[in-house]
Amino acid sequence: MNERQPARRPGGRSARVGAEVHQAVTDLISERGYGNFTVGEVAARAGVADSSIYRRWGNLETLLTDVALTRLNAQSPMPDTGSLVGDLRTYAANVAREITGPDGLAVVRLAVALSSNGQAGLRAGDELRAERMRQLQSMLDRARDRGEHAPDALDVLDHILAPMYIRVLFGMVPLSPDYIDGLVDRLV
Amino acid sequence: MNERQPARRPGGRSARVGAEVHQAVTDLISERGYGNFTVGEVAARAGVADSSIYRRWGNLETLLTDVALTRLNAQSPMPDTGSLVGDLRTYAANVAREITGPDGLAVVRLAVALSSNGQAGLRAGDELRAERMRQLQSMLDRARDRGEHAPDALDVLDHILAPMYIRVLFGMVPLSPDYIDGLVDRLV
Repeated sequence: MNERQPARRPGGRSARVGAEVHQAVTDLISERGYGNFTVGEVAARAGVADSSIYRRWGNLETLLTDVALTRLNAQSPMPDTGSLVGDLRTYAANVAREITGPDGLAVVRLAVALSSNGQAGLRAGDELRAERMRQLQSMLDRARDRGEHAPDALDVLDHILAPMYIRVLFGMVPLSPDYIDGLVDRLV
Repeated sequence: MNERQPARRPGGRSARVGAEVHQAVTDLISERGYGNFTVGEVAARAGVADSSIYRRWGNLETLLTDVALTRLNAQSPMPDTGSLVGDLRTYAANVAREITGPDGLAVVRLAVALSSNGQAGLRAGDELRAERMRQLQSMLDRARDRGEHAPDALDVLDHILAPMYIRVLFGMVPLSPDYIDGLVDRLV
């Protein structure tokens, strides 16, 4: 409980603390759901001081967003298959697998929780979406650079991601490969 | 606290109890959020016995669904303008106004809460969606009867409702009239 190291030192103790704090957040989310634990409880679970968390992340919302982005980037990386349809189908299939898996709606629930959690929550939610939209945009930009006619990132959100999210949120699962490819083909 | 009347007698005491119970649920939802209160707390707030609620609704999930449907039907009735585009634009605008209003995501949050709340929750959520999908389908059937080419109810869910829900859930508001009409025009 005495974590007094500089927060930004790469590797070593700082990296280990980061991993322990991320794991504590993931555990608390699955046990209690978003919004039902404090920085103090994360710190106790991870075996670090509250001040370590505040120094490194500033507040709970930023920490939750960091955990969500790390998870997203590990589990749903942006594909680069050489064609727009290939990229979008692969991306949509990855997202579908992620959100229909165990605790798969973690990121969506986080976005929802952040959006109803004051200014810090709104800012953290904005950052989370902006970062994923930037990644999506660079995939679409690559398609444009190849001379393909690519939709906007917001169109992908509206007509590929939103239908899948809502069907999973409403328990209308599974999402079949034909359904997912159909969303992509309809948009492209 | 002594509510011992037959539950189904229309009007009079039964109707008053129904209204009081609905109000108690609405209040508890806005104070605590879904999933954070019991039948006993609803009963205490409404000034009726727990058994009155169980006799009439069976369980908390069915009661929550009844409240949500009553609210939906009052605030977002299905329009009948004489044309498919008119109906869909009016319907989409009603839904947008409802979900961007105070506590507007109540119904979406309910669907989400029900879908993560065991078998009774899943059944109640299914009923809620099925009822609204039936209402939507009859609007689309009227268009087909007039000889218009109408989309499926699930297409309306995927490409008109889902984008609006997700944008509101993610805090990407307001939803402009142009945006809403654009979703309809793109589908029809």
